[in-house]
Amino acid sequence: MFGGFFELKGYRKPVLVSSTDSVGTKIKIAIALDKHDTVGIDIVNHCINDIFTSGAEPLFFLDYIATANLVPERIESIVSGLAKACKAAGCALIGGETAELPGIYSGDDYDLVGCIVGVVGKDKIIMGKGIVAGDAIIGLPSNGLHTNGYSLARKVLGETREKLDVYSPEPGKTIGEALMEPHICYYQPLKPLLPYIKGLAHITGGGLVGNVPRSLPKGLVAQFNSRKWTVPSIFKLIKKQGRVSTAEMYQVFNMGIGMVVFCAPEKASRITRALPEAKIVGEVVKQTGEARVIIDNKGYRKDKIA
Amino acid sequence: MFGGFFELKGYRKPVLVSSTDSVGTKIKIAIALDKHDTVGIDIVNHCINDIFTSGAEPLFFLDYIATANLVPERIESIVSGLAKACKAAGCALIGGETAELPGIYSGDDYDLVGCIVGVVGKDKIIMGKGIVAGDAIIGLPSNGLHTNGYSLARKVLGETREKLDVYSPEPGKTIGEALMEPHICYYQPLKPLLPYIKGLAHITGGGLVGNVPRSLPKGLVAQFNSRKWTVPSIFKLIKKQGRVSTAEMYQVFNMGIGMVVFCAPEKASRITRALPEAKIVGEVVKQTGEARVIIDNKGYRKDKIA
Repeated sequence: MFGGFFELKGYRKPVLVSSTDSVGTKIKIAIALDKHDTVGIDIVNHCINDIFTSGAEPLFFLDYIATANLVPERIESIVSGLAKACKAAGCALIGGETAELPGIYSGDDYDLVGCIVGVVGKDKIIMGKGIVAGDAIIGLPSNGLHTNGYSLARKVLGETREKLDVYSPEPGKTIGEALMEPHICYYQPLKPLLPYIKGLAHITGGGLVGNVPRSLPKGLVAQFNSRKWTVPSIFKLIKKQGRVSTAEMYQVFNMGIGMVVFCAPEKASRITRALPEAKIVGEVVKQTGEARVIIDNKGYRKDKIA
Repeated sequence: MFGGFFELKGYRKPVLVSSTDSVGTKIKIAIALDKHDTVGIDIVNHCINDIFTSGAEPLFFLDYIATANLVPERIESIVSGLAKACKAAGCALIGGETAELPGIYSGDDYDLVGCIVGVVGKDKIIMGKGIVAGDAIIGLPSNGLHTNGYSLARKVLGETREKLDVYSPEPGKTIGEALMEPHICYYQPLKPLLPYIKGLAHITGGGLVGNVPRSLPKGLVAQFNSRKWTVPSIFKLIKKQGRVSTAEMYQVFNMGIGMVVFCAPEKASRITRALPEAKIVGEVVKQTGEARVIIDNKGYRKDKIA
């Protein structure tokens, strides 16, 4: 049986933009804490942010939940998160599939996969093509790992209930609470500012280094000044406890920036005035070496960055 | 990063139709046989058939493959099947995600999830509303289990390489070969016949009994005459070896019919002439009891059917 219908009305030269992804191993933290009402928020917001980098608005979302044994309360809890995030973004939760696959999944493990379809007018697609040297780079804060870097985080911080329940004065909450912070959706706050935006990069797996180059025209470099934003304390904890190098931290985690916005310098204040949490965190410069992303940070040599 | 763009051109009042699903535990057979080039065909054709029941033509497909350890050759093999089936149906394989999740999957296990988006003109949607008593029911043959009923099949026939390699004279191939037959796509053969079709039912999990009622208006019953089609020998083998009742067989498996077509009796020959493999297998009648699907079969009492 198919998921659902969606009537496409009122779009001139509509281009459909789609994405599929899963929550990844953040789900292991949810399972350890037996807390399933936010993983749905994670995957919906992750997918919305992904397609929004093209300027697309979300139309509809489909979910796939697979597990060894269907526990109705758990499925309800997962779906409540999906529904909440879809509603907040005006995205239709159009259908989904719940599969009981005891041969593939074991114990309480499950996988949560999302697929989103959005739309953007052909002449409104944001591709970063207009970005030039001198453009401003604005960072929108993340509230933690979002949905990436959990393999390293779990390795360093542990994934037992006991370890996740430890209160940490630095984030001011338990490790588990800090790791479960739901992925922020940047679509609603940034949508009205699209006319000022030249490019967007959703900071997921690979961090700034891995995600920013895709949005940048050839020959340009995104130069970040790390003193301009605050790195959430959960990252400091992972770095300290796991003795992880600064370079690796920036290559695995978003380090406090969930979405990067490129705009003309004279438009930057339109964005930072509308969104006080957004900060100018860097500048686009001409490429001279191999690096496409430079993060100015003590202990993090420029030439080390991909 | 999002999956991809799809420009929607040339549709009047387009309605997007979408579906998501996985191959289910058929994947366990693929893993046991280390044969991964057809599971992609399975999921693509399954999804295409699902949305085609509304009259929709496939536009684009996204895949999600998750496993404990990414083996490049295996991923290539899976994707080759996806690409082959998408190409055959004129559907764009627009993007996907490959996730390495050792905490969720173990050993060689993997899950393969598909998401499809298709389109149908608002005034061309097939909903079965026009079906009346006296209409013909045409069955299009399946070539085996397609992607449903594998939990029971594996329980009865086994899932070790040893058991799957047993040659069976009845299907004339090994058990494993019979179980791996790829899901048939009914979109291409039926598309030109859409003007004659009132309703479609894709026979997946739940068999005829579970899938046909969704396409039938209230107060009507689909009455099948099981002498009119051939039940593939793999089902006979499962029935015999597992001592499975006829009723259960019809409630779990497609039993040889992969797609059910409803049409006016005078149009039936247009379909059976165009598709010699298609057979008139029943008739729509007025509902008198509780059953919405009646399968006329010895050993299968009418009143036992849901």
